[in-house]
Amino acid sequence: MNMPEQVTIVEVGPRDGFQVEHDFIPTELKIEVIDAIAKAGVRKIETSSFVHPKAVPQLADAAEVFAGIDRQPGTRYSALVPNLRGVERAIEVGADAVRLVVTSTETYNKKNVGMSVDESLEVCRQIFDRVADEPITVEAVIALAFGCPFEGPVSEDRVSELARRFVEMGVRELSIADSVGLGNPKRVASTMARLRSELPDVAFSLHLHDTRGLGIANAVAAMQVGIDTFDASIGGLGGCPVFPDGAGNIATEDLANLCGEMGIETGIDIAAIQAVSGRMQQFFNRRLPSRVLLAGTPGQLYDKIRGEAQ
Amino acid sequence: MNMPEQVTIVEVGPRDGFQVEHDFIPTELKIEVIDAIAKAGVRKIETSSFVHPKAVPQLADAAEVFAGIDRQPGTRYSALVPNLRGVERAIEVGADAVRLVVTSTETYNKKNVGMSVDESLEVCRQIFDRVADEPITVEAVIALAFGCPFEGPVSEDRVSELARRFVEMGVRELSIADSVGLGNPKRVASTMARLRSELPDVAFSLHLHDTRGLGIANAVAAMQVGIDTFDASIGGLGGCPVFPDGAGNIATEDLANLCGEMGIETGIDIAAIQAVSGRMQQFFNRRLPSRVLLAGTPGQLYDKIRGEAQ
Repeated sequence: MNMPEQVTIVEVGPRDGFQVEHDFIPTELKIEVIDAIAKAGVRKIETSSFVHPKAVPQLADAAEVFAGIDRQPGTRYSALVPNLRGVERAIEVGADAVRLVVTSTETYNKKNVGMSVDESLEVCRQIFDRVADEPITVEAVIALAFGCPFEGPVSEDRVSELARRFVEMGVRELSIADSVGLGNPKRVASTMARLRSELPDVAFSLHLHDTRGLGIANAVAAMQVGIDTFDASIGGLGGCPVFPDGAGNIATEDLANLCGEMGIETGIDIAAIQAVSGRMQQFFNRRLPSRVLLAGTPGQLYDKIRGEAQ
Repeated sequence: MNMPEQVTIVEVGPRDGFQVEHDFIPTELKIEVIDAIAKAGVRKIETSSFVHPKAVPQLADAAEVFAGIDRQPGTRYSALVPNLRGVERAIEVGADAVRLVVTSTETYNKKNVGMSVDESLEVCRQIFDRVADEPITVEAVIALAFGCPFEGPVSEDRVSELARRFVEMGVRELSIADSVGLGNPKRVASTMARLRSELPDVAFSLHLHDTRGLGIANAVAAMQVGIDTFDASIGGLGGCPVFPDGAGNIATEDLANLCGEMGIETGIDIAAIQAVSGRMQQFFNRRLPSRVLLAGTPGQLYDKIRGEAQ
């Protein structure tokens, strides 16, 4: 199996995970979690979101979170921004990157942000131009790239077209997202191979949810065609606010364990991630979807048995 | 991605799943479940086990189950047998196949059946000879083929050696098992490719647990090297009795959905499997690990949204 030697895991729990949680997570706890994730070796963290507090009350404290974190050198702290007002706030707090999202289908994009896909792309262009002279990287996201609850399967041509339009406005980092878990390994491999071949100057990443149990398999399929950057969330937090279903993002510790077991470097201390996930599991008072959080890594199992035998 | 056109899913819930359950499942319910699984299109069902009732009280009713099921033509109903006494009982009830298990490591095999691996292989040889003139297929299982909690990682050489010894006694169907979830896609692909190349006359299958979230990814990796038969259990029932951990076998509906989404034929009616899993979820009164049981297939999601929109 052809696999990358290194994989970058982008932690999205503090944004994509937290935003669907009903109980408000105290700002100090958010900061504690983000700092622990950075100390565990994660080099890219989607830290919060500058959407309107009425839309996502959980992340109304985005500015306080950015002000409170203990920034680790070499770590990129990003914020999701929906519009020019959001990007101004991201600039103010010194976010290292902004994430812009366009959904692949008109129906969902309209429901999500009240705009057509073309209008959303125009907003993205304005945001991109606004940060051109700022020390801020733009990470664009094509959401529902493998299927839409409202419009059904999404074609590769459509994803390819949206990717090209982002690239035309200057974007060089593109995340392909499957937030409702509608992709499968064959399609993921095919789409990602095509995108890499059509747009060789773009750094692609994947945002995978485990809604139907295929998240990790989809990640492996993408690795086989050269993708080396993946979103994941501590404990497997997350899920689609419109279609809740029990499983969220692929879990950071599960993906880090997958890589570790295959000899792929991530730089992540899995035990430290498990500790943070365990802390959030306690806070939410429910079992989180991560398997490795519950069962441990193979190495942890071997160590445990050896310890008991002594 | 190279993939088989067809995949055979072997349902092991009624044996591997049920045996770890504490509450006794009434014999009539077992029969109802097995019949429903067969009617859902599953063509191989591990139906029960002829181990000593003191060891596995849950399956003490194996003979009654075999007597009570409504056998579907073309469906293979197998039984796990640990010894010659077990095989006599399997012959009596007219099992179509017997499953024989040897664990790859001395420590675990000793703890599991009180014998060395050589002694276990000798028992297997006696069983194989006993059924030689019966209309019974032998399915041999190499357990803990990717790692052992007691002895750590298991080498490919060891698995290859055990496979060869089974083949020397005449076995032609070999299941490679990862019941504690210690395999990973790279290793699974490598091991299965090697076994197929060394023993081309053997029909190999895989028995995968999702303990660390890699079960489905391991199945995809095996498919890529030509493996087309996989054990799975309704709802993801199962788990290791010695090391319980929350996730069991890969779920039948999750594997069937994976195949369906990739255009691979399984002959299985996923909705019918979800109904059986849902029934057992109700009986056990806890959420089973299957993701598709909870979230549905992509097609079911699309149908639901269309229905709501009308």
